[in-house]
Amino acid sequence: MQMKVSVIIPAAGQGRRMAAGVSKQFMLLGGEPILKRTLDVFLKEPSVSSVTLVVPEADVGAVSEEFGGGRGKLQPVVAGGRERQDSVYNGLLSLSADTGVVLVHDGVRPFVTGAMIREATQAAIAHGAAVVAIPVNDTLKRVSPGGIIEGGVDREGLWRMQTPQAFRYAILRRAFEKARADGFCGTDEVSLVERLGEKVAVVTGAESNIKITRPEDLALAEMLLAARR
Amino acid sequence: MQMKVSVIIPAAGQGRRMAAGVSKQFMLLGGEPILKRTLDVFLKEPSVSSVTLVVPEADVGAVSEEFGGGRGKLQPVVAGGRERQDSVYNGLLSLSADTGVVLVHDGVRPFVTGAMIREATQAAIAHGAAVVAIPVNDTLKRVSPGGIIEGGVDREGLWRMQTPQAFRYAILRRAFEKARADGFCGTDEVSLVERLGEKVAVVTGAESNIKITRPEDLALAEMLLAARR
Repeated sequence: MQMKVSVIIPAAGQGRRMAAGVSKQFMLLGGEPILKRTLDVFLKEPSVSSVTLVVPEADVGAVSEEFGGGRGKLQPVVAGGRERQDSVYNGLLSLSADTGVVLVHDGVRPFVTGAMIREATQAAIAHGAAVVAIPVNDTLKRVSPGGIIEGGVDREGLWRMQTPQAFRYAILRRAFEKARADGFCGTDEVSLVERLGEKVAVVTGAESNIKITRPEDLALAEMLLAARR
Repeated sequence: MQMKVSVIIPAAGQGRRMAAGVSKQFMLLGGEPILKRTLDVFLKEPSVSSVTLVVPEADVGAVSEEFGGGRGKLQPVVAGGRERQDSVYNGLLSLSADTGVVLVHDGVRPFVTGAMIREATQAAIAHGAAVVAIPVNDTLKRVSPGGIIEGGVDREGLWRMQTPQAFRYAILRRAFEKARADGFCGTDEVSLVERLGEKVAVVTGAESNIKITRPEDLALAEMLLAARR
């Protein structure tokens, strides 16, 4: 049986680390908004049934007009909340009840691939929840606010989380209901599912699947894009 | 007073993760050996006085011939030891006694910049020891060998170590003598200096200062290089 795969792309952040006049998801990468590039990967991926963008309330009209919300796979654009978690929850509430798997993906991670999307989906079906990640290959140290090394951290078995994060719909719904009941605010959806005691599997992403949050990330992204052409 | 700055580039590893017939430092990046590209950054940097390559004993002759060991800033090529630490030690023993600051840099990190070299050198002069590093921006999780998440790690204050690592000559000598006396083998030179109880400062590197150890790193490196052109 083919499960319905729905994607939520939260892009309601203010991009405070960019220090530019425009939110990071709307900054241009190779002449197109970063969010548009991210969105297009999911729209083109055959295994994906629907995609829901979550943007700041003030931007819902403009984004709907520019990106064509409500046409084809792209669902009507949803207004975000105060925190990322609130935004994803708003997106989750908008999904139809026949959804089998929900993927959550950062709006500012445009180098995601079809293979990552499919592998995360398959792992979520098999295990209940899965996240794209890469192993830590660098030596890690804990550094004081003054910039002096204070000690090391064992990197054995450590992975850096990326997105998409993928979940069976019922598990993600339960995870959000519990987090809201408990007043818990996590950094990502995986942290909510872990609180249920549910297993989360890891699938291997890529170094190039970067999150664009700082000016130097955008410079690297332009390089990655230029090299792909 | 201008301190003499000497650089040691250990490139004596076998590149087991590359699974190619040639050691990773001699693999081609944009048509040139990775090691040659790394070396050239240091040879072109005016603040650097001397550069010493450490390669597998069997390669000393070929590397000397190809890269011109003993000409200009480039010192005679040194034979490496069994572990990275042994190779750096061999390089250290070959330096002249008037060396003020020693930089150690991975042979397979060709995207180091002049600014990183100068900042690491200045921080070593100021603090005794310094390392180029970047803050961890990703959520980290500990993952079981079976690929299931076991728990989180607080990323606050965590940095990923890169190279160059820079040291006042006397401190690095003492660090090596103590490690050898104790039979201690560390992952890098910083770990040896920490055992002395000496401070190690951090200076900010860049995401693009990658270490090329796996096939996917080489693919990313080719992209970075292509985009620079």
